[in-house]
Amino acid sequence: MTENSFEIKFNKIAIVGLGLLGGSLAIDLRLLSPDIEIIGIARRQETLIEAELLKIDDIKIFSKLSNDITDCAGCDLIVLCTPVQTIIDQLAQLSSFVKIGTIITDVGSTKRAIMNSASAVIPMGIYFVGGHPMAGSDKAGLSHAHAGLYKGATWALCENEKSGESVDKLFELIASLGASPIIIDADSHDDVVSLTSHLPHLVASALVNAVFSSNYEELALPFMAGGFRDTTRVAAGNPALWRDILMTNRDRVLTSLTKLIVELSIWREALQTADEPYLEALLSNASERRVMVNKVRKWKSIE
Amino acid sequence: MTENSFEIKFNKIAIVGLGLLGGSLAIDLRLLSPDIEIIGIARRQETLIEAELLKIDDIKIFSKLSNDITDCAGCDLIVLCTPVQTIIDQLAQLSSFVKIGTIITDVGSTKRAIMNSASAVIPMGIYFVGGHPMAGSDKAGLSHAHAGLYKGATWALCENEKSGESVDKLFELIASLGASPIIIDADSHDDVVSLTSHLPHLVASALVNAVFSSNYEELALPFMAGGFRDTTRVAAGNPALWRDILMTNRDRVLTSLTKLIVELSIWREALQTADEPYLEALLSNASERRVMVNKVRKWKSIE
Repeated sequence: MTENSFEIKFNKIAIVGLGLLGGSLAIDLRLLSPDIEIIGIARRQETLIEAELLKIDDIKIFSKLSNDITDCAGCDLIVLCTPVQTIIDQLAQLSSFVKIGTIITDVGSTKRAIMNSASAVIPMGIYFVGGHPMAGSDKAGLSHAHAGLYKGATWALCENEKSGESVDKLFELIASLGASPIIIDADSHDDVVSLTSHLPHLVASALVNAVFSSNYEELALPFMAGGFRDTTRVAAGNPALWRDILMTNRDRVLTSLTKLIVELSIWREALQTADEPYLEALLSNASERRVMVNKVRKWKSIE
Repeated sequence: MTENSFEIKFNKIAIVGLGLLGGSLAIDLRLLSPDIEIIGIARRQETLIEAELLKIDDIKIFSKLSNDITDCAGCDLIVLCTPVQTIIDQLAQLSSFVKIGTIITDVGSTKRAIMNSASAVIPMGIYFVGGHPMAGSDKAGLSHAHAGLYKGATWALCENEKSGESVDKLFELIASLGASPIIIDADSHDDVVSLTSHLPHLVASALVNAVFSSNYEELALPFMAGGFRDTTRVAAGNPALWRDILMTNRDRVLTSLTKLIVELSIWREALQTADEPYLEALLSNASERRVMVNKVRKWKSIE
């Protein structure tokens, strides 16, 4: 077990939903402390069995595993790592039994629906902070969970009137994972990720469907090289998870999608009119910007 | 120097254009044979200096370097590794001086314009086969050249009346690099790559431009995580190279782009009407297909 100078301010943490995000979080928390209690909650029996076997240096990652969310009772911190609609349902469930002083957070990819739900259902004395670590992957599930997933990842935190001082505690915990906490309002968050995450997912998926509904479905396979594979990688993600994301950010995704369709029409016009200089200018703009993104140092966690 | 059972049927090979593709090809050829003459032709002085220093086990990759394409005279094989429009210009130049029996090929990303040009300018007694290895990258330039770039890559070969038996020789050479030669007509090639390569490049570029012309340019940076980076990676490619590709495949790219815009309209409609089951069906289709692409064994070279 690695010695770590960070002292976790929580004694008993529940992680609800043991996929890539929940599983990786549990591993990192266990690496930070061999002593804290970590409760894992999952619906599927196979997941619970897989979670039971997770160990680091002979110390089990999970102190207790259960398929019953009421086993979160008595925890200081509850982290909901399920799809957005499930998080909303679970907030209502939790509000009926968690103890005063509990901090609840989540890792859902959209934040307005969750923040609104928390405002409505979380009782006085319970704290809630919305969260969104930018560390998802098409390689989902507990089997892909690993230490250090959050290193260098932006982790958005959204406050509301239920948050109180719990934000500071979460900020510190997230930074100790090597992630970069950013406090942002739910509106801005949902706007920004509609462009940087939801639109890319939608476009990658549409691209796959367009190619596969062409006349070249089979001939195309050997011609799906690195460019195609990179551009469409995210489309392999979990459909139900992404349905929830797109549905709970519908208005913003629609605005972003319309923006992209307008942009594509500009490219179409440049091609139709064979406007070489303009086409090259469009390509140059994109290339310079994308090279710049490569150069941006990943947001650094607080040392 | 690795011993290799493959015997190269060429004694003197010219590589015109020393970027990622030309440089990597030279390295692989030198690995196949320490004895063949490899002539490197490049326009820029810095490239020639960089190429001069390339060695494997103390044997220079290039036997001779020059900025003068007429130094290709006397070669058995000339491989044009320049952008598409430059290839077209160089075919005309070569046709005035290469010796009878020379085989010329290229690595250009579109094939109709090049095949038409070859038909028009290549004189009797000179052989031409169009080529397109699917091994390009946004990491371009000689500094990224490396052994084994072509391993597992599809390498399209297009014949015309100028090709004769040279196709067999090239097929064998390409297979010896570990690549997968596929003989395909230029029309089908340009159709297929408009979907699997050109459309992804265009869409990735349009996505970058859409995000960077939003109100969230700066705030968006920390939210450009793995999904955004994968989906837009190719957009960092060389603008002039891609201008040529899109311009020489304009009609097919327009058809493919229109197809994608129609597909995106379907997604927009599903979002507008909040049609959850349909949205999930669209996501599922894309996900299943993309997972299938991951599973496709890379086309294997002939052993």
